[in-house]
Amino acid sequence: MSSQVKLNNEKIDRALLDSILLKRFFYVASFALYGGVAGLYDYGPLGCSLQANILELWRKHFVLEEDMMELDCAITTPHKVLETSGHVAKFADWMVKDTKTGDLFRADHVVEGFLEAKLEGDRLYRLQQGEAVEGAAPPAGDKKPRKKKNTVVHEPLTEEVKAEIEFILAQIDNYDGAGLGELIKKYNITSPEANNPLSEPVAFNLMFDTSIGPSGNLKGYLRPETAQGQFLNFKKLLEYSNEKLPFASAQIGRSFRNEISPRSGLLRVREFTMAEIEHFVDPDNKNHSRFDEVKDYKLRLLSAEQQLKGITEVTTIPIGEAVSSKLVDNETLGYFLVRIHKFLTKIGINPDRLRFRQHLNNEMAHYACDCWDAEIHTSYGWIECVGCADRSAYDLTVHAKATGQSLVVREALKEPLVYDQTKVEINEKAFGPALKKGAKPVRDYLLSLSESELEDLQKQFTDKLTVTGTDNQQYDITTDMVSIKRVTVKTNIREYVPSVIEPSFGIGRIFYSLIEHSFWSREGDEQRSVLSFPIGMAPIKCTLLPLSNNEVFNPFIKTIGRQLRDHGISTKTDDSSASIGRRYARNDEVGTPLAITIDFQTVQDNTVTLRERDSTKQIRQPVDVVVKIIKELVEESTTWEQVISQYPLFTQQEVSE
Amino acid sequence: MSSQVKLNNEKIDRALLDSILLKRFFYVASFALYGGVAGLYDYGPLGCSLQANILELWRKHFVLEEDMMELDCAITTPHKVLETSGHVAKFADWMVKDTKTGDLFRADHVVEGFLEAKLEGDRLYRLQQGEAVEGAAPPAGDKKPRKKKNTVVHEPLTEEVKAEIEFILAQIDNYDGAGLGELIKKYNITSPEANNPLSEPVAFNLMFDTSIGPSGNLKGYLRPETAQGQFLNFKKLLEYSNEKLPFASAQIGRSFRNEISPRSGLLRVREFTMAEIEHFVDPDNKNHSRFDEVKDYKLRLLSAEQQLKGITEVTTIPIGEAVSSKLVDNETLGYFLVRIHKFLTKIGINPDRLRFRQHLNNEMAHYACDCWDAEIHTSYGWIECVGCADRSAYDLTVHAKATGQSLVVREALKEPLVYDQTKVEINEKAFGPALKKGAKPVRDYLLSLSESELEDLQKQFTDKLTVTGTDNQQYDITTDMVSIKRVTVKTNIREYVPSVIEPSFGIGRIFYSLIEHSFWSREGDEQRSVLSFPIGMAPIKCTLLPLSNNEVFNPFIKTIGRQLRDHGISTKTDDSSASIGRRYARNDEVGTPLAITIDFQTVQDNTVTLRERDSTKQIRQPVDVVVKIIKELVEESTTWEQVISQYPLFTQQEVSE
Repeated sequence: MSSQVKLNNEKIDRALLDSILLKRFFYVASFALYGGVAGLYDYGPLGCSLQANILELWRKHFVLEEDMMELDCAITTPHKVLETSGHVAKFADWMVKDTKTGDLFRADHVVEGFLEAKLEGDRLYRLQQGEAVEGAAPPAGDKKPRKKKNTVVHEPLTEEVKAEIEFILAQIDNYDGAGLGELIKKYNITSPEANNPLSEPVAFNLMFDTSIGPSGNLKGYLRPETAQGQFLNFKKLLEYSNEKLPFASAQIGRSFRNEISPRSGLLRVREFTMAEIEHFVDPDNKNHSRFDEVKDYKLRLLSAEQQLKGITEVTTIPIGEAVSSKLVDNETLGYFLVRIHKFLTKIGINPDRLRFRQHLNNEMAHYACDCWDAEIHTSYGWIECVGCADRSAYDLTVHAKATGQSLVVREALKEPLVYDQTKVEINEKAFGPALKKGAKPVRDYLLSLSESELEDLQKQFTDKLTVTGTDNQQYDITTDMVSIKRVTVKTNIREYVPSVIEPSFGIGRIFYSLIEHSFWSREGDEQRSVLSFPIGMAPIKCTLLPLSNNEVFNPFIKTIGRQLRDHGISTKTDDSSASIGRRYARNDEVGTPLAITIDFQTVQDNTVTLRERDSTKQIRQPVDVVVKIIKELVEESTTWEQVISQYPLFTQQEVSE
Repeated sequence: MSSQVKLNNEKIDRALLDSILLKRFFYVASFALYGGVAGLYDYGPLGCSLQANILELWRKHFVLEEDMMELDCAITTPHKVLETSGHVAKFADWMVKDTKTGDLFRADHVVEGFLEAKLEGDRLYRLQQGEAVEGAAPPAGDKKPRKKKNTVVHEPLTEEVKAEIEFILAQIDNYDGAGLGELIKKYNITSPEANNPLSEPVAFNLMFDTSIGPSGNLKGYLRPETAQGQFLNFKKLLEYSNEKLPFASAQIGRSFRNEISPRSGLLRVREFTMAEIEHFVDPDNKNHSRFDEVKDYKLRLLSAEQQLKGITEVTTIPIGEAVSSKLVDNETLGYFLVRIHKFLTKIGINPDRLRFRQHLNNEMAHYACDCWDAEIHTSYGWIECVGCADRSAYDLTVHAKATGQSLVVREALKEPLVYDQTKVEINEKAFGPALKKGAKPVRDYLLSLSESELEDLQKQFTDKLTVTGTDNQQYDITTDMVSIKRVTVKTNIREYVPSVIEPSFGIGRIFYSLIEHSFWSREGDEQRSVLSFPIGMAPIKCTLLPLSNNEVFNPFIKTIGRQLRDHGISTKTDDSSASIGRRYARNDEVGTPLAITIDFQTVQDNTVTLRERDSTKQIRQPVDVVVKIIKELVEESTTWEQVISQYPLFTQQEVSE
């Protein structure tokens, strides 16, 4: 909160931070009493409050400010829905098994870890030989959090092998199971830690499955994203928006991903809170009405083209320029990148450690046609925290096709539209009598075909053709029953499937990154850790500290606590017997920006001291004044700098701080 | 919001209400595009906002006001945890199958529906015969929402049979599978609707199961309640509370229940948002420090004793009296009943349709030792919306035993405590050498025994005894290795497992009840439905209505919308071409308390009209004044009555209202 604290904490002591987060109950491994389950975490009071503050701001910043329609959809999802969306077939990772221990690993992580260890072994070998090694050790922060422990053998590589390994690592996301299997054979890759032979990679679907209802017949999954619930409500959303585009829905909720072998704390988990926006827009006009307001806003971008050239330096340019040069595809995408940036920096993410990276073709999800990730730099490297994908019309199209429902926008045209179209025409007199029961499934099949599919069919359809009806039976059709023709159509209505721009926030990753960015230690005293959350994010706004456990302080604690609570301001009383200095330190450690101390002078004149976390400066004022100041600080209608310019500093030496 | 509206809407047109809720997108059946899944619902923008308002107030009223520790725990839960808690064995309903169609039903609902139809057939028969039938038809609202459609045959019953059926219905929750099976045989009960023979009842566990991780070896469930996550964090919670009792944790989150055959809309669902509090308290002192503040607060109570006597009338008494007469067991339970009552009435539940019903012994959950339900009266009858159970030390005790961890509070005593205790003493010299590898499992087994278990063991232990170690192997012990003795203990530390008082809120049921209690129709016009939510709960606070779609109004819409949003006040613009009157009606239908109309006078003098939903009264003031009034109304620092006493009413005839 104080601008005097300039956070420059790229290298943090992660072990220290982890121990603080555990000790102070920000979060813990779930079911720890039973030995824990990898990838599952419980948030304690401080974590829960920090998460709630992030989500509250998210709701204000997006849902309220942009007039989005918030939804809260079911988590358990029937098989058919996720089969249609492509998740049953494609939402999978490649998995390998240690053939001796039976341990299971993500194949790409194993290959990556193994090859990185080779490079590191080479580097260390050369260092030992006294060679000038190019570049220092790669900073721990520059790798994705994927590596498993591999024994690093100090061994030289030929330049050729080294180049080959670097080439593989650069495009590791590009390998499928067979490709990863070949790499494992070629490099004799064994399991990390145990060094045993590995199985062939097999696909493992990442959805948790379950069955709905008592019969066991309705197979279902826990949703892997909140998006599908929003797509399925498209018709109601369109109706709620008076049939007008663009509009956006939003959803905050839990999603699930049955990770093969989760590591990296909160960054790779099996259950996570997401906040997703689905912005539905005319595919022919992705301009945004408020783009003008943001066009000069500068972002740090790393394009696909740059990455393919091996460039890792971001380009900082105004979003207006990025859109006009087509680096960012359209105004709506650009507008959301800015809104995401504003949100992240507002909660306290360091803008110097935030970038937008464009996806390479090979790493795009099965539904996406363009994607920029907001990546935040942490001690684990650059972490994808927000994806901003253009899912095009993919989802609505597949759901419409699977259910036979029309998921389109109908727009009245001022001028009628005239165009040519390939259409199927059915000669009812011949069609029905010839196909009998097959008439409906064949008709449904033919009418479900897109224009290009019809054109393909037409090519094979000279006289007679065998087709598969929607009942999966085969039928013969002839040209006297069915004709496929190019016809001229005139219409006053334009019908189209909207495109969807999807900003998708991983709240847990943002939560963790924010903690790292807020973490530092007071100079000269490594043990005095501070979490400098912005006041809006701080889990507790104010600590109440009685000088000792003398009972005369109790009424003050009670009254001040109530006054602050009545303003909706969260407080915590620390009446332990530790010294005031020690208690201030504990207060700083959990990121509480303000502390009120109640001492014997309070009993005499009803004044208290108010201390600010980052500057450690204090003022002394009557209780009512202090409560008013705190309220204004929390509402952000004043700053600590303004407060100390208005009220004299209280400089009496603190006891034992 | 206006006290002029006196809601007396016990008989609502549920079909009309349902159609409004669907049409206006409060909520819809999930996956409706795919035919829907029973018991799963998606909340639309209005429902989502209403739910968020309820939860926000819940957080303020409980977590902030009572200084509770909020948690956010994992949903997927390993088998072992829920086996220990008793859910694997006991969280089940009895299910019967239609032997021809294969349809599955809840056995108790089928029996109940069948027997109720018998009684109704008898009543109708007597009515036809011109007999004076005692009591009118039971009002639809007086039954639990359980009945399935049964054919009502107009047939007389003997007084004996009738009395027997009434006796069975009064204690239907008391029957297990065998008992229900006997009733089915005895009364020849067939499946509802199809009238086919039924199978024997079988237990169906209501937890959704899944497996965690790729191996398939770690069986898990979706949590059936949020409570277990809180119990498992007991040690961290105690530490966070400086090792002092009492303290409370709280959790808001999704829980799951794989209902056999869900009906009754939001009242019986497979996924639901819960808000649960676990208040940990000294079992020997369940007094509450703030009980004095509430002791004169009156509640409508229906005790177990009253129910067993067939009394259905509540007793209205101050909670202080209820606790001192032991009707309500202790102050903490009583304090929470009052807090629950205050919360429910604050969100808008009609206090005349709210009661607290004590559970009968036979309906208590497997973990509870006393329980009062807050029941809300709706068109489905009295609905359990909040359970307030004393779970005693059940959960902590079973988890401690299953994990070998100590889940106790250690309290320093001022005076040392001297008491006799039965203890096991191990003679190490004989014990280890005799049992070898068995020494540890036998020791662990013996030390895990409670005092009464030790006393039981002692009775059989004359010379030699065979015991089962924690490794499930059998071992012989002799009296020279182990002795069980009554000894005098002196200690300065008291160690105990706390009791837990658990107020548990079903948010979806409260949500639905609130909607029913807020629903009414303007006199003389059945179609003008109104939802009179208190302003704090209203999904949208203010509608913006331009008189027409003339472009001159646009800048005003934009400016006023922004001003309100900046105060965090949700608005919606209705710029459809419907008349102002029609748009006011739509506004009332979704419960929006305020509406601003922008007309040609606005363009001239920057004044707008402000209309209140319940009174339909209006004022006309400059935009800035109106925005200020709205802010004060939303903050509840003023009321509409005060506003119209301060500003002149605007009485110009509305166009076409």
